[in-house]
Amino acid sequence: MSKLIDFYFDFISPYSYLAHKKIINLDKRNIFNYKAVLLGGLHNLGGITAPAFNERKMKNMMNDCVLIAKKNNIPFKWNEKFPINSLNLMRGFLLISDNQKNRYFDACFNAYWQNNIDISKDENVKKILTDCKISYDFFSSGCKDQNIKEKLKKLTNDAFNKDIFGAPTFVINDKIFWGQDRLDYALDEYNL
Amino acid sequence: MSKLIDFYFDFISPYSYLAHKKIINLDKRNIFNYKAVLLGGLHNLGGITAPAFNERKMKNMMNDCVLIAKKNNIPFKWNEKFPINSLNLMRGFLLISDNQKNRYFDACFNAYWQNNIDISKDENVKKILTDCKISYDFFSSGCKDQNIKEKLKKLTNDAFNKDIFGAPTFVINDKIFWGQDRLDYALDEYNL
Repeated sequence: MSKLIDFYFDFISPYSYLAHKKIINLDKRNIFNYKAVLLGGLHNLGGITAPAFNERKMKNMMNDCVLIAKKNNIPFKWNEKFPINSLNLMRGFLLISDNQKNRYFDACFNAYWQNNIDISKDENVKKILTDCKISYDFFSSGCKDQNIKEKLKKLTNDAFNKDIFGAPTFVINDKIFWGQDRLDYALDEYNL
Repeated sequence: MSKLIDFYFDFISPYSYLAHKKIINLDKRNIFNYKAVLLGGLHNLGGITAPAFNERKMKNMMNDCVLIAKKNNIPFKWNEKFPINSLNLMRGFLLISDNQKNRYFDACFNAYWQNNIDISKDENVKKILTDCKISYDFFSSGCKDQNIKEKLKKLTNDAFNKDIFGAPTFVINDKIFWGQDRLDYALDEYNL
């Protein structure tokens, strides 16, 4: 199996969504390996205040994402319910089988960053799961499972211990590229 | 006189240097209007912790700047004396005459981000001034002048009141573009 680019993401992150859509537009999804992290947890570990919690940075981020989306022909709408707690959706990603992951990944990102849906609401999660042919009961009980809780915590800690502090982050050949602006750099490294 | 793109900068900012060199490489210097701000002051006003003061962000920034420089054919060396206090050099920019500004701008940025010179040291400031044909006595006494002190403070406050929170920031048609990654976007807006 050839090497892949690790793509650290959280559904809460608009820049992760934009990076994902750039990857789709480049038809390069197959060379990325999704790595779930809890962005809030990563920020806490790193002593970082997210842009969402700084008035000017938040305002800039909202505008910036719209500009990036426009320049890259990506459908995008700033979600009115930002930020939300993405914990269960991120746990869910770890819970489902590998062949469900791509569809779930798209469904969560599109719901939140394209269709302005509050994905912290149970009724909306149910719709996503139905669309992905995932059982709500399986999902719901799985998210409360201690192993899954620990797994997401461990993945977030592992990322932190590799010097990762934000999302999206790309890692290839032990080199770290932070931000959707560095997707090209990660691809350059991949193509070396 | 045609419109210009305001370019908010501080010599302490490696990304401002990289943006400047991109502009030089594009031969577009004539459409930018340099706006001095004290980046540390701007961060304080905005309640922002600079990447320099976060271990992982600092490490990433050092690596990131080298990558950007390489990709854009920009000579660059991370300064061993980072961060320093850029206060006097920024005040100096306000003090000197308009026809000296371009040369001084280049000399300060090149010394710090190309030649690894500690520009907080008096002997090195003297060399820069000699190179720019600026009298050291004029510069030195001017930097202590209350009007100049107030002027830099006012420019920083004015920037903050326009929602600016970092450097480089570009402003054109009342639109704000933060970071060297958004230089292209500012140029797009300019060319509308």
